[in-house]
Amino acid sequence: MHKHFFTPGPSGLYYTVEQHIKKALKTGIGSISHRSSSFKEIYREVDSNLRALLNLPDNYTVIFTNSATEVWDLSAQSLVAEKSLHIVNGAFSEKFYKTVNNSNKTALLTESEWGTFPEIDYNLVKQADHIAITHNETSTGVSTPLETIYKIREANSEAIISVDAVSSLPFLDIDYSKIDALYVSVQKCFGLPAGLGVWLVNDRVLKKAEEVNKGIKEMKSYHNIMDLAKYAADFQTVSTPNVLNIYLLSQVSADMLNRSIQMIRSEIRYKAAVFYKMIDSHSKLRPFVSEKPLRSETVIVLSSGEHTKNIIEYLAEKNMIIGTGYGKHKTDHVRIANFPTHSKEQFEMLTDLVEKW
Amino acid sequence: MHKHFFTPGPSGLYYTVEQHIKKALKTGIGSISHRSSSFKEIYREVDSNLRALLNLPDNYTVIFTNSATEVWDLSAQSLVAEKSLHIVNGAFSEKFYKTVNNSNKTALLTESEWGTFPEIDYNLVKQADHIAITHNETSTGVSTPLETIYKIREANSEAIISVDAVSSLPFLDIDYSKIDALYVSVQKCFGLPAGLGVWLVNDRVLKKAEEVNKGIKEMKSYHNIMDLAKYAADFQTVSTPNVLNIYLLSQVSADMLNRSIQMIRSEIRYKAAVFYKMIDSHSKLRPFVSEKPLRSETVIVLSSGEHTKNIIEYLAEKNMIIGTGYGKHKTDHVRIANFPTHSKEQFEMLTDLVEKW
Repeated sequence: MHKHFFTPGPSGLYYTVEQHIKKALKTGIGSISHRSSSFKEIYREVDSNLRALLNLPDNYTVIFTNSATEVWDLSAQSLVAEKSLHIVNGAFSEKFYKTVNNSNKTALLTESEWGTFPEIDYNLVKQADHIAITHNETSTGVSTPLETIYKIREANSEAIISVDAVSSLPFLDIDYSKIDALYVSVQKCFGLPAGLGVWLVNDRVLKKAEEVNKGIKEMKSYHNIMDLAKYAADFQTVSTPNVLNIYLLSQVSADMLNRSIQMIRSEIRYKAAVFYKMIDSHSKLRPFVSEKPLRSETVIVLSSGEHTKNIIEYLAEKNMIIGTGYGKHKTDHVRIANFPTHSKEQFEMLTDLVEKW
Repeated sequence: MHKHFFTPGPSGLYYTVEQHIKKALKTGIGSISHRSSSFKEIYREVDSNLRALLNLPDNYTVIFTNSATEVWDLSAQSLVAEKSLHIVNGAFSEKFYKTVNNSNKTALLTESEWGTFPEIDYNLVKQADHIAITHNETSTGVSTPLETIYKIREANSEAIISVDAVSSLPFLDIDYSKIDALYVSVQKCFGLPAGLGVWLVNDRVLKKAEEVNKGIKEMKSYHNIMDLAKYAADFQTVSTPNVLNIYLLSQVSADMLNRSIQMIRSEIRYKAAVFYKMIDSHSKLRPFVSEKPLRSETVIVLSSGEHTKNIIEYLAEKNMIIGTGYGKHKTDHVRIANFPTHSKEQFEMLTDLVEKW
C-alpha cells in the first residue's frame, strides 16, 4: 500500500505530479536547455498560470529562486534600506530576522511565544522601511490574520511588505495590492519535489532594490533581485534552474486552475474544520495554538507530549506519515499538513484514526 | 519514436534515470525532509559512490550547490586571497574570470582564441594564490591536457587549483592529489535533470577559506563554503536542496560503478575516435579544434558554417537532436555530446548519418 505523507513539507506530491513526470520523461523536458525557446515557453506558461491562480496584479514579476532561504538572503541585501521589522513567533520568522541581523542592516523585532501572535508595536512598524511577516509559521501552526497585514500596510504605506507564504500558498487568498513581495517553496502546498522557490515581487520592490544598491559595485551574490527580475522579464533565469520542477509547477498550476482554486481552498477549510472539531475534545492531544482564529488551516500543530512517538507510529502502521514537531518541540508536538493534494477522503480517514486512537 | 538528445547539456538522461524516478515516486523520495535520517542515508550513499567512482581521496568533502555558477561566486569569495589566475579559452572559463574580476579580488588572465589553448605564463602562475582551469570548455570543445594541470601544480604548489569539470566528469580521470577543488553539473555526463551542482574540495581549500574569511563578520551569501562543508560533514545541506536529484545521483553513480567506470571511459574514447576519424574527411564539416590532442572527447564541436541549420534539421528528422554552437558561434558551429548515456549503437548511427549527409 502507498504511504500517505501528511508531513508539512515536503509533503505528499500533488496527485497529478507522477503523470506529469512521466510525460516529461517521454517528451525530453529533462534534456532541454534553460536557454532554449522551449524553456521560455514553459516559463511563460507557469507565469501565466500563477497569475490566474493567485489573481496576481500585472505589476508583479514571477521570479524563481533556489529556496526560501535564498529569498531571505536576497531580501536582506536589496529590499532593506536601513531598518527591517520582523514579526517573530516561530523558527522560520526568526531565521529571516537572523539573516537581516547578521547583515549590515538593522533588524527590529516584535516577538511572541511560539503558538501565539505578538501584539504589533506600531511605533516599530512606522520606523521600518521593510517589514517581514510570516503568513503561516510552519514550525508552530500559527496563521497571521490578513487584517493584521493590511493594518500594518495602512500604518506604513511606504515600507516594503514581504510575506512568507511558504506553507500556505496557493491556499492563501491575499490582496496583492496591500503587500509588495511574497515567496513560497513548491514542496509544500503545491505538492512538488523540493528544490525550487517562487518569489513574487511588485514594481515598488524592484525600484527600491535599484536605489538600495545604487553605487554598490560588487554585488553580494551571483543572484541578486535586479538580475533575477531582468532575466524573468524575458522568461529566462540567471543560472541553470531546476527545469523539471518549473515544468511541473506549470502543469500543477494548470491542474489547480482546472479544478478551481475556490474549490481547493474550500476543501482545505472543510478538512481543517473537521479535524479541529475532533481534536478539541480529544483526550490525549490538543491543538498547540489555543487562540482559534490563529490556527493554521494548512499546517495543524498538536501538543502531543508523551504520546508523540505513539501517535506517529500508530498512524505510520496505517501508512499515514505525519510530521514531528519542529526544533525545540520535536518530541512533544506533531505536525499535520492539510494541503491541496490531501483528499477529503484521506483526511477524514486520518481524522477518524486519530479520534479512535 | 523517442528523441535522442546529443545536446551538450542538458543532454539525454542517463538510461537508468527513468526507472529511478519511477521508484522514487513509489517510495516517496519526493516527500522526505532534507532534515530526515532518510535524506542523510541518501547523502551518505552518494558520497560513498562518488568516492569510489572517482577514486576521491579521503581529504575531500562532497558538497552540493545549486549550480556551477554558484561555485564561481563562492570560490571568488573564499578560495581567492588576493590574486586568481584564469586560463581563458571560451565562454565558461571567461565567466569565472569575470566573476572574480567583478569581486574585490584581482583576476589575472592567460587567454587564447576560442578553439585553442593558451601558452601558460608561468610568471602569472607563480603570482596567483588561486588558479582556475576549465578542463573541458563546453563552448569550444577544447580539453585541457592533464599534464598541463600537473605542471601548473608543480610550478606553484601553494596555490589552490580549481578545476571546472562541468562537462567531463566522470569521464575525466584526474589525480586529485594534484588539484584542490573540482566542480561538475549533473545535467551533463551524469545524465540527470538540471538543477544540482557537485563541488569536491580538499582540506587545503577549507583551511584557506577559514583564513580568507577571518575577521569578516558578514558573509556575502547564505551559502558559503565553510557552512556548506560543515553541514556536508554531517551529510546535511544548509538549505532545502534538490532532494530528488541527489537521490538520482546516488543511483546513477551506483549504476556507473556496477557497469565499471573503466568501461564507461573506454566507450567514450571509442565513440569519439570513430566520430573524429569520420569527420576529418568530411566535405562540409570540420572539427573546430584543429590541434588533435586538445579535442574534447565528451563535447565535439564542429565548424559547420552555412550548413549549420541544415545538419541540425537533417538529424532532427531522424530524431537525433544535436546542439547549436555557443554564443558568437551559435549559427556556424554545432556541438555534439558524447556522454555515458549515449550508447555505442546510437553514436555509430549518428556518425553514419553525418557521414552520408
